[in-house]
Amino acid sequence: MASSSSSSSGTASPCGACRFLRRKCTHDCIFAPYFGSEQGPVKFAAIHKVFGASNVSKLLLQIPPHDRPEAVATIAYEAQARIQDPVYGCVAHIFTLQQQVAFLQAQLMEAKAHLAQNAMNSHNNIENIFESAQIMMNMQENTKQKGVFF
Amino acid sequence: MASSSSSSSGTASPCGACRFLRRKCTHDCIFAPYFGSEQGPVKFAAIHKVFGASNVSKLLLQIPPHDRPEAVATIAYEAQARIQDPVYGCVAHIFTLQQQVAFLQAQLMEAKAHLAQNAMNSHNNIENIFESAQIMMNMQENTKQKGVFF
Repeated sequence: MASSSSSSSGTASPCGACRFLRRKCTHDCIFAPYFGSEQGPVKFAAIHKVFGASNVSKLLLQIPPHDRPEAVATIAYEAQARIQDPVYGCVAHIFTLQQQVAFLQAQLMEAKAHLAQNAMNSHNNIENIFESAQIMMNMQENTKQKGVFF
Repeated sequence: MASSSSSSSGTASPCGACRFLRRKCTHDCIFAPYFGSEQGPVKFAAIHKVFGASNVSKLLLQIPPHDRPEAVATIAYEAQARIQDPVYGCVAHIFTLQQQVAFLQAQLMEAKAHLAQNAMNSHNNIENIFESAQIMMNMQENTKQKGVFF
């Protein structure tokens, strides 16, 4: 590991994570690509408080580099959610979405039941129309046979 | 903090967290009520790996005792999800639920559009029935005026 202080951006300033941790930022710093020098410290603070820098570092090292941006984004999201809601964290979001799914499923079931009922009513209406038409034709036929034309 | 080794259950055996951490379990151990001696170590292992014992301890201490069981349950869930899916963790579940919500909303919108169309068709059908009935009545009236009864 090189001892020179440099983030992935090639500048001499430490990355946001190392800035927060007040440590030297090496050229192969695992956090540097995801935590800029300016906004990074704030973003990293939540992650460090909830997961710990060491745990996140180990986690990122076991993930292929192309998957790390997504991992950092989801870890940052979870950390922020846990700080905002220490009891439920982002699981509160899962509960809300599960309730939304259940509500929508109930609404959809109701709408489908109405559609099925409508289809039955429509069938009956068509039968009524055919019945009316049949009566009309019978009346016309009856009238013709009796010699009345109109 | 008492130095005697005892979990919340009152036995001399350490709680699952302290057993995993190979440390003495004190009578006021923050983990003891939520990590039994038998199943606790496995449950705690995931939490320790993802969040770290120290971070979870600090988190639980800032939460009122009556909220801690829920907090432990959601932390255990997040930890397990992150071990199963290191890139997305439980956020994968959120993505899936969001997609399910979007799909159900689209289906519901479609069903409602069909219902609206059916309502319009039903109105037209009723008008057709009234029209047929009107024609029939006119025919009957016409026939009666010409002296033909049936």
